[in-house]
Amino acid sequence: MKGRRLIFFAYLCGMEENMRISSVQNARIKRLVALQQKSAMRRESGIIVVEGQRELMHCAQAGHEVLAVYFCPALLGGPADDYHCPCYEVTHEVYEKIAYRGSTEGIIAEVRPRLLTLDDLHLPERPLLMVLEAVEKPGNLGAVLRSADAAPADAVLVCDPLTDLYNPNIIRSSIGAIFTVPTVACTSEQCIQFLKTHNIQILTAQLQDSHPYYATDMRRGTAIVMGTESTGLTDRWRQAADAHIRIPMRGQLDSLNVSVSAAILLFEAIRQREG
Amino acid sequence: MKGRRLIFFAYLCGMEENMRISSVQNARIKRLVALQQKSAMRRESGIIVVEGQRELMHCAQAGHEVLAVYFCPALLGGPADDYHCPCYEVTHEVYEKIAYRGSTEGIIAEVRPRLLTLDDLHLPERPLLMVLEAVEKPGNLGAVLRSADAAPADAVLVCDPLTDLYNPNIIRSSIGAIFTVPTVACTSEQCIQFLKTHNIQILTAQLQDSHPYYATDMRRGTAIVMGTESTGLTDRWRQAADAHIRIPMRGQLDSLNVSVSAAILLFEAIRQREG
Repeated sequence: MKGRRLIFFAYLCGMEENMRISSVQNARIKRLVALQQKSAMRRESGIIVVEGQRELMHCAQAGHEVLAVYFCPALLGGPADDYHCPCYEVTHEVYEKIAYRGSTEGIIAEVRPRLLTLDDLHLPERPLLMVLEAVEKPGNLGAVLRSADAAPADAVLVCDPLTDLYNPNIIRSSIGAIFTVPTVACTSEQCIQFLKTHNIQILTAQLQDSHPYYATDMRRGTAIVMGTESTGLTDRWRQAADAHIRIPMRGQLDSLNVSVSAAILLFEAIRQREG
Repeated sequence: MKGRRLIFFAYLCGMEENMRISSVQNARIKRLVALQQKSAMRRESGIIVVEGQRELMHCAQAGHEVLAVYFCPALLGGPADDYHCPCYEVTHEVYEKIAYRGSTEGIIAEVRPRLLTLDDLHLPERPLLMVLEAVEKPGNLGAVLRSADAAPADAVLVCDPLTDLYNPNIIRSSIGAIFTVPTVACTSEQCIQFLKTHNIQILTAQLQDSHPYYATDMRRGTAIVMGTESTGLTDRWRQAADAHIRIPMRGQLDSLNVSVSAAILLFEAIRQREG
């Protein structure tokens, strides 16, 4: 008798699962907020949170699996697109609770990203790659991805990352470029091995023993490698380099932002290839 | 008798002016906070607030008048440098109150900036200028200034600014470049007149009717003109232009950040001049 009751109860729940959520105490909402805030939870569950219309569109187009969509019609200006998954309408109050970046966009989704490995990359004949070693700030990685999309670079390789690639801050600051640019997290060792195997020249951005970047030929397959703003590149990368390049700086201050440096180098490679 | 009392009172105040401030209710502290928060107050008094050791050093070196220094020895790691002005030691609690960007730096000053006009600029024979029309975000202007310092550009001209040049956010995001790069606020009309008079070519960054930036000769006196991220340049600038240039964008997203675009264009001009 008890078993039958349980089955009936489960049936009712399934029937009545409410596609409108008006309580911030709702279990789905609590889980969404936790996913957004805790990288450990994202890592363990393999699920990330994507906010914003444009970001979600690029995410879905890149083949990542959208698991559930939450939208606020008043903010979104209508119903959500069909992402072939459960789609929950939430109140403004609930949306305020789950929105990472204020309440302007009106759409948030749970997504199971397809994590790329180096072997998944399909590179053209003379690829242009951006390699970042141990990037510290999510905002910097996001800004580099934005430039990598525009140049474009064929992929961005993030070595020994100190943060997960799908950190909400990276998704936000990349305005979705994390989904339009093939991006791989790997170890520096794996990366160097990959570049050597594929005969891609390694140009490390560093001051010591370096040439001005524009005096270096970047028309063949090229990986531009940058370290952190604070400590620069490790010896491993300096030794693996085919050449060292620098952006001559003639001002009174110390350094360019890493995303600005990355853009100058990527666009110079493109200029050389177009010229 | 009343006059004498007043003189005696003023004398006592002068004698006893405490160079250690431990109360957040102190009138100087309240004024400093107001200066930091209110652009109208900065405008009316002609006084700005500069935070950080490096920023203050560049500010003083550029000839701006430092009026008063406030420092927290525990954070600064010792006494403040001598800026030939009253120097107040403040407690950690007071410093927390006046610090705009957390409490890591330990030094803040009131400064009367020397405001440059176009006529104050001493330009070399083939100047390289960055012109920003109606820049919206202080952080963007700060980032452009940082690149202008590094390239370097000979000056940054900010036309019809929507924010005051010495907004704390601009000082911060420029990491002091607002003091190392000659920066002028003026109207677009004044700026165009100045560029024409000095035979400096005007290159406007825009998509319509434009050439790739690297196909444009920037070796003669050049002003690179950029509009806002949202609306671009006004017609006035498009019509004043000698040529229109664009950064070819081949990605899936819309635009580069204005500071990244500025850096790509400035460094291309430098590359052409060095090459």
